[in-house]
Amino acid sequence: MERTTEELTGLLRSLVAKMKAYQHAQTVMYFDAATVAPPGSAEDRGKTLAVFSEVTYGLQTGEETGKLLSALRERTEELDPVTRREVSELWRDYERTKKIPMEEYVAYQVLLNEADAVWHKAKTESDWPAFEPYMEKIVAFNRKLAGWLAPEKKPYDALLDEYERGLTMEKCDAFFAVLRERLVPLIRQIAEKGKQPEDIFAGKDFPVEQQRKLSDWLMAAIGIDREYCAIGETEHPFTDGSSKHDVRITTHYYVNDPLSSLFSVVHEGGHALYELHVADGLQDTVLAGGVSMGIHESQSRFFENIIGRSRGFIRNLLPELRELFPAQMAGVTEEDLYRAANVARPSLIRTEADELTYSLHVMLRYELEKQLMDGSLAVADLPAAWNAKVKEYLGLDVPDDRSGVLQDSHWSGGAIGYFPSYALGSAYGAQLLAKMKESMDVDAVVASGDLTPVLDWLTERIWSKGSLYDPQVIFEQAAEAPFDPTYYTDYLIGKYSALYSL
Amino acid sequence: MERTTEELTGLLRSLVAKMKAYQHAQTVMYFDAATVAPPGSAEDRGKTLAVFSEVTYGLQTGEETGKLLSALRERTEELDPVTRREVSELWRDYERTKKIPMEEYVAYQVLLNEADAVWHKAKTESDWPAFEPYMEKIVAFNRKLAGWLAPEKKPYDALLDEYERGLTMEKCDAFFAVLRERLVPLIRQIAEKGKQPEDIFAGKDFPVEQQRKLSDWLMAAIGIDREYCAIGETEHPFTDGSSKHDVRITTHYYVNDPLSSLFSVVHEGGHALYELHVADGLQDTVLAGGVSMGIHESQSRFFENIIGRSRGFIRNLLPELRELFPAQMAGVTEEDLYRAANVARPSLIRTEADELTYSLHVMLRYELEKQLMDGSLAVADLPAAWNAKVKEYLGLDVPDDRSGVLQDSHWSGGAIGYFPSYALGSAYGAQLLAKMKESMDVDAVVASGDLTPVLDWLTERIWSKGSLYDPQVIFEQAAEAPFDPTYYTDYLIGKYSALYSL
Repeated sequence: MERTTEELTGLLRSLVAKMKAYQHAQTVMYFDAATVAPPGSAEDRGKTLAVFSEVTYGLQTGEETGKLLSALRERTEELDPVTRREVSELWRDYERTKKIPMEEYVAYQVLLNEADAVWHKAKTESDWPAFEPYMEKIVAFNRKLAGWLAPEKKPYDALLDEYERGLTMEKCDAFFAVLRERLVPLIRQIAEKGKQPEDIFAGKDFPVEQQRKLSDWLMAAIGIDREYCAIGETEHPFTDGSSKHDVRITTHYYVNDPLSSLFSVVHEGGHALYELHVADGLQDTVLAGGVSMGIHESQSRFFENIIGRSRGFIRNLLPELRELFPAQMAGVTEEDLYRAANVARPSLIRTEADELTYSLHVMLRYELEKQLMDGSLAVADLPAAWNAKVKEYLGLDVPDDRSGVLQDSHWSGGAIGYFPSYALGSAYGAQLLAKMKESMDVDAVVASGDLTPVLDWLTERIWSKGSLYDPQVIFEQAAEAPFDPTYYTDYLIGKYSALYSL
Repeated sequence: MERTTEELTGLLRSLVAKMKAYQHAQTVMYFDAATVAPPGSAEDRGKTLAVFSEVTYGLQTGEETGKLLSALRERTEELDPVTRREVSELWRDYERTKKIPMEEYVAYQVLLNEADAVWHKAKTESDWPAFEPYMEKIVAFNRKLAGWLAPEKKPYDALLDEYERGLTMEKCDAFFAVLRERLVPLIRQIAEKGKQPEDIFAGKDFPVEQQRKLSDWLMAAIGIDREYCAIGETEHPFTDGSSKHDVRITTHYYVNDPLSSLFSVVHEGGHALYELHVADGLQDTVLAGGVSMGIHESQSRFFENIIGRSRGFIRNLLPELRELFPAQMAGVTEEDLYRAANVARPSLIRTEADELTYSLHVMLRYELEKQLMDGSLAVADLPAAWNAKVKEYLGLDVPDDRSGVLQDSHWSGGAIGYFPSYALGSAYGAQLLAKMKESMDVDAVVASGDLTPVLDWLTERIWSKGSLYDPQVIFEQAAEAPFDPTYYTDYLIGKYSALYSL
């Protein structure tokens, strides 16, 4: 006897509820592992994740799931738009995940759990050889993964598409070429003629307890509802969201550099705002949550740079810093703080790079990943290749692998093909800003200390939509135009020419 | 075709691995909820726990599980002792859990998740009416539960047996009668004739950052391996262990009272030590972990009181306190600190009660639970009944429900019948101390600052055994004698007569 559409959607809801339960538990366990779990607990966690990924694999690719989705696909006209999109997304996952052999899928989850623990230790001890065998396995798996998912594509193209649907090396190459052409001369000009501001924080200590209070202030300042968002502390800051009612960001405090955690909190806060504002109607569906890494990074980097490093935000921040750090901030003017937040100077660490040189960090990772995936670079040669690129693009010598190839958590987390989305996101953000300015005085809104109009604009055009459309569609709906990277280069050239009086 | 014993034990291992994965995830989610999860995440967590408890229920009571256990029960002679015990424990669970209707089981897990969030808020706001409807439901469920599990028993006897197998109201009544008869006169004597020491901490602040460092020192001092044990902060301290490689304790810091967290850390540290020292051979079995609440509390209260409040421990603690709190500890002598740690004075909060009056707190909870379960006390009348008992046993007026009926997390966590194990555990500990003293100079070991001989003794006699035997068997193997509460009363009378020169 054939099932009614209502019965089928009932089964779909129950399937999605199960999927979300495992995803939720895994998100919490990941956050716990990165923040407070005892170091020796990694092996146990691996066993649990192995059990769960087997179940998850079964839910995604099982015969029952296939039958249910097929039946629903035959009645798409009867489904509401949200359910229709869910079915199409789940079907995509079903077809794709089925191509990955289950044993390999489970083994990879266990490997990543181990790799994360090994990377944490290797980074602390600047011990590349400890991490190298894991990187070997991660690269090998990703090449196989690309072959399973899209054998017709070049491996790296298949991976880029994983993080930003539709992204290719061709698009990346063109995008980075624009950045290289327009930004490298500007960076060179600053190095040659720009006068760097004094280091206003040199020799001063900013106690962690006070920096924690600053984080609370920052989260409130950008409009985060703490009822649904927590903050933790990790080596590498990240945002984890299992639903709009449970989002966590993390940061890392450096006693001698308050700006590091400050902009990290605003960056992760941007990710959090996106997750927190998905429409209520998408809650409990597979569409709840940001649509892609590129759109996600467009939000985080918008808040970190366009909002966080703006005149108006700096002006409102200053009294708070003075209250929390009266001795350290004595004599520091608004102009001093604005310049300190907007220094453009090549540096070693991506997450602490300035807005202008940031994309060079991304570009070098993109080029290395491309080579790793086409086989022209061996994992064993990665540290040397890294250091050479840093010398080439940033003019710096890398003193140790902790400040070099081991600095990011992406590769140990299995993510190859993620990095380009950071630069892409920054560029998306600049184009969105231009659009936003057509309907409001963004500077005045930021200066007012109440970001509501900005939050509303982003909620309506991006956040509320969750994963209801493809990333490119969402971007174009918001920007009312195709993507154009020159908004980004124009923005940077305008801002930094003024800052350095060029 | 019949399966071989090897095949059957292979299936058993796979079943247990699955059970442990869910238990592990739930433990982490519980810890996360109590420490860092955003407050608004409770509802999502409830949904996930509902999915998981349905799976768990299926694993415990499913047809396949029943068949597997039955087949293994037919070949007990072929099984090694660990597997044999596992099968018998799982069979017990299978038969018992099957008696609980699945919908009720799942609904109760969801209720407890909600109740926990409501209780946290109700306690902070001293708002009994907010919690009362949850307590109603919890009491109602526990009465039903008792009926399902052991319809032949009185409901409260069925629940006592849940937390300490073999415990009954008859045994509790006899035990508490001994305590009442011997301790109440001593408490009265101290109130009438004992000279109370000065409050050495009055008006002083002990910053949380420094107290956190003290916690690290304490955990090291009692021999906790931080590789496998983390510490968090919660309203109500607890210990959570999912295996000997992943144990977490929590504490609560009060700026004006360093002893509260200090002894809390040593108490939870005792629980942690037990979990951390289960034999390697029991890892990944259902027998890994403490055997019962009574034995567990015997370890935590042994460390808190017998070790932590001893002369030798106080002597070693003093230099550390002086280093962390130089101004606050100026002029405080070893004798001052020893007396401060061992004041006997009726107070309102169980977890902060002194060693002598502590069991009166437990006794009053036991009596109230007994009445709740036999129906002679209505939930609505619980706060008044609580306050009357506090007046009767401790001579104190309860100013608000936060310091009264809402103070503990046990009821909101669904645990009715747990409390007696605290007093029982304290008494077990005193008898174990007497036995330990036959083979070593415990005071000298504690004074040496290296507890290894004590840890080894407890590992051999209790900790390593996990749940390999029933609690009473483990206790009698360790003490080489049946339980006798007069060891406890003699210990307290000796200690407090000396302290108060009676």
